[in-house]
Amino acid sequence: MNGAEGLVRTLVSAGVDVCFTNPGTSEMHFVAALDRVDGMRCVLGLFEGVVTGAADGYARMTDRPASTLLHLGPGLGNGLANLHNAKKAHSPMVNVVGEHATYHIAHDAPLTADIEAIARPVSHWVRTARSAAAATGDAAAAVCAATEPPGQIATLILPADSAWQECDGPAPAQAPGERRQATQQAIDDAVHVLRSGEPTLLLLAGPALREAALRTAGGIAAATGAGLMTQLANARLQRGAGRVAVERIPFPVDQALAALAHYRHIVLVGAQAPVAFFAYPDKPSLLAPPGCEIHRLTSAAEDSAHALAWLAQELGAEAGAALVQSSRRPALPQGALDKDSLAQALGALIPEQAIVADEAITTGRGFFPYTAGAPPHDWLNNTGGSIGLGLPLATGAAVACPDRKVLCLSGDGSAMYTVQSLWTQAREGLDVTTVIFANRDYAILKGELRNMGAAQPGRKALDMLEIGRPDLDWVAIARGMGVEAERAATADEFCRALARGIAAEGPYLIEAVL
Amino acid sequence: MNGAEGLVRTLVSAGVDVCFTNPGTSEMHFVAALDRVDGMRCVLGLFEGVVTGAADGYARMTDRPASTLLHLGPGLGNGLANLHNAKKAHSPMVNVVGEHATYHIAHDAPLTADIEAIARPVSHWVRTARSAAAATGDAAAAVCAATEPPGQIATLILPADSAWQECDGPAPAQAPGERRQATQQAIDDAVHVLRSGEPTLLLLAGPALREAALRTAGGIAAATGAGLMTQLANARLQRGAGRVAVERIPFPVDQALAALAHYRHIVLVGAQAPVAFFAYPDKPSLLAPPGCEIHRLTSAAEDSAHALAWLAQELGAEAGAALVQSSRRPALPQGALDKDSLAQALGALIPEQAIVADEAITTGRGFFPYTAGAPPHDWLNNTGGSIGLGLPLATGAAVACPDRKVLCLSGDGSAMYTVQSLWTQAREGLDVTTVIFANRDYAILKGELRNMGAAQPGRKALDMLEIGRPDLDWVAIARGMGVEAERAATADEFCRALARGIAAEGPYLIEAVL
Repeated sequence: MNGAEGLVRTLVSAGVDVCFTNPGTSEMHFVAALDRVDGMRCVLGLFEGVVTGAADGYARMTDRPASTLLHLGPGLGNGLANLHNAKKAHSPMVNVVGEHATYHIAHDAPLTADIEAIARPVSHWVRTARSAAAATGDAAAAVCAATEPPGQIATLILPADSAWQECDGPAPAQAPGERRQATQQAIDDAVHVLRSGEPTLLLLAGPALREAALRTAGGIAAATGAGLMTQLANARLQRGAGRVAVERIPFPVDQALAALAHYRHIVLVGAQAPVAFFAYPDKPSLLAPPGCEIHRLTSAAEDSAHALAWLAQELGAEAGAALVQSSRRPALPQGALDKDSLAQALGALIPEQAIVADEAITTGRGFFPYTAGAPPHDWLNNTGGSIGLGLPLATGAAVACPDRKVLCLSGDGSAMYTVQSLWTQAREGLDVTTVIFANRDYAILKGELRNMGAAQPGRKALDMLEIGRPDLDWVAIARGMGVEAERAATADEFCRALARGIAAEGPYLIEAVL
Repeated sequence: MNGAEGLVRTLVSAGVDVCFTNPGTSEMHFVAALDRVDGMRCVLGLFEGVVTGAADGYARMTDRPASTLLHLGPGLGNGLANLHNAKKAHSPMVNVVGEHATYHIAHDAPLTADIEAIARPVSHWVRTARSAAAATGDAAAAVCAATEPPGQIATLILPADSAWQECDGPAPAQAPGERRQATQQAIDDAVHVLRSGEPTLLLLAGPALREAALRTAGGIAAATGAGLMTQLANARLQRGAGRVAVERIPFPVDQALAALAHYRHIVLVGAQAPVAFFAYPDKPSLLAPPGCEIHRLTSAAEDSAHALAWLAQELGAEAGAALVQSSRRPALPQGALDKDSLAQALGALIPEQAIVADEAITTGRGFFPYTAGAPPHDWLNNTGGSIGLGLPLATGAAVACPDRKVLCLSGDGSAMYTVQSLWTQAREGLDVTTVIFANRDYAILKGELRNMGAAQPGRKALDMLEIGRPDLDWVAIARGMGVEAERAATADEFCRALARGIAAEGPYLIEAVL
């Protein structure tokens, strides 16, 4: 068999069974190999940002890497923004990037670029397969690197001749790394702080946000009086009725400072020390109050769930004592469609085990209170801040979990970056209901202009912040890509549209006109 | 004034008067400064690939750099593919990329990335403005770097505090570099070869493809019997009736080898030695026949127009003797809509001084013969091979040349990468008629799979090569972004649609169903 087939077989035997693709000429042997190898589902994206964002969504919902197939340096470049987001989410991923045949690179053909250099800023691991014989072992190493805790971006560059030459067959899978346990000292330190009686916050991230770990953390909070919070954006937060609810650190710096103001200690559980999303003149970068001590229970790569259980044991804290969210839904809203009525409708209708891919930016900041008591669901945020993740993330989550409803909540500005996702949803019949919040603004930027202390925007500045003139017709755009769609301009219309979307078995889009 | 305003004023005083933008929070001071500074036109793109591709189109038609405004590392990443193309086109460009405040970077906020590392593979010049005081001089240096022959990509990273702190006012413009003259030895070598009587090709690129230089080259060809060709893809080729016509080296390797087979000498005029676009098993990378000698008259950075004139003088060649293209248009086609009837319709209707942004890939390979005798026009190709350039290129060309009709010819697969361009065309009222060749395939890849020696594609491979199921409805997509559109399924329908598009004063899209 050739190197491409050996590589695909290696991936499959290592448990990588989905490939999000946007191939080109240099990847044709890889594509041909996909025909010959069972066990790898291929999902085409018409733009590489769809491909990498979908792989992120898949990884968040399965805790396993998907592979991607990208065309040379520029194809990788198009996927770069969502690789950035995936890297910040600690999502495992194996990118296979085609390259010219090794001997062709020196001739500087049009598509020649320094692919390793493009890959490095968004990859934890980068390698070029120098031959077909090497490619299979490289693929096994790539999967191993991707699954190294807490999850890494592995990018394997595959020159065309390494794909078309003969190899000796697939390479055996390599054992992935395991999460390290917290140190005794970190546990002792946390126990000391939590027993001190001083105001203490457990700041949770990563696997600490899964249901069981949250319950353990809730038990610690109940036993010690500690607060529980998460970072602003989380790769995957399990929430809803019967689960331990946690608030997020707010985005606006002043609100974040206020939320943390009374803590004397912050214990990081897989989290980073709280930092402002952006810097502003005369506002701090670090959000903890002066004199607040930062303690680390676990790094992102360590086993936070185990550490919480260990800590609970030391403290004699019972998970059964945790305060859990009661089941409650808001009534269906009526009247005008605004941020509150939208949130109410979501809270009223979000189905059990829904997956929410949230890139609602300004519109979505108030969704948490209204949806807190809905049936259990998973909430996925943009962890890297590069907008254009929401639609691809929903796409990948739907591939990962065909039995669950995916709700994608996106600002209109955000959705445009990777709007091609809708076509992939249509082709694959994915069960995604997309809600576009059509405020015809980069609304966040208007606020940010004020935050920056800049003056009232004039016409030229407003032209850069408003995305109307012409208004985007999301119903037409969605239908143009094969996705059924409707427009809602009142709360009542929105509720009925959302109910139709949830009842649909395939992709559906609602333009919520704000 | 603050650093952002100083920077904008520096750009304007250096002659940079258009900014293609997709800003975010870290660029808000720059956006606010645009309000206060006259002389900089701002054009918003809803995706960064639109922004960088438009700046490329602008540069090709004005021979001057536009600026771009991009949001941190991921925003730059989204623009990377078309920066790759612009770099290969030798288009001058000044990118301004926002960055966190200098003191904020160490805290690893979500959007933190190594922007310099992301910029370097697609930039000739990269610098971070370390302070507001430095930012203005850095901006002047960036413009100077961009205009260094043959045209360069200059990327200036602007930390937020370098934008918001005070500076001393704009920096003076720096003198751009000038094109070096060819060497006497290069001229002598070319004279010797052209007088040798052996079959010789002048391979032309860059400024040698403008009308006057082509006429000079045509005179040399007439006097010496030399052949004239261009590279496969050119940044800007002036052609049509009354001009010297040149053939391109074909894309398929076998055809390219045949086209060059009888030459004993190739004289490079700003061109590279001919190389295959991709490598294939058992086919050569270099396209010149064995024993063919390669001579360089000028590099891309040298003054090819002057060198051709000098060479003509040495040879006693008269530009007046050049064979020029006679004026002739094909008749309007009837019957089925296929590659030939499309080409006929274009040849029949393309208006004088049209700018053709060509990313028609497979469909467009046969357009040249039918359009050769049309009124004078400019033809812009994708020089870097990363598809998704056509629509942005047309957008930028239309901004540059508001009095000329722009025809954008794009495959359906290509157009999807940067489909957001249509919205910018609608907002700016740009005079672009876009023709989408809707073959519902990555048609090039089906041929490439064969070229690679891969077997007949099975279902899974075909799924990666065909972009139907569902078919894209380009009329709906275009209208969704505010662009009037229609569908044409016969040659007659296409002729009428194209005539309507050409008569329209704003953007218009035609879905040509193949």
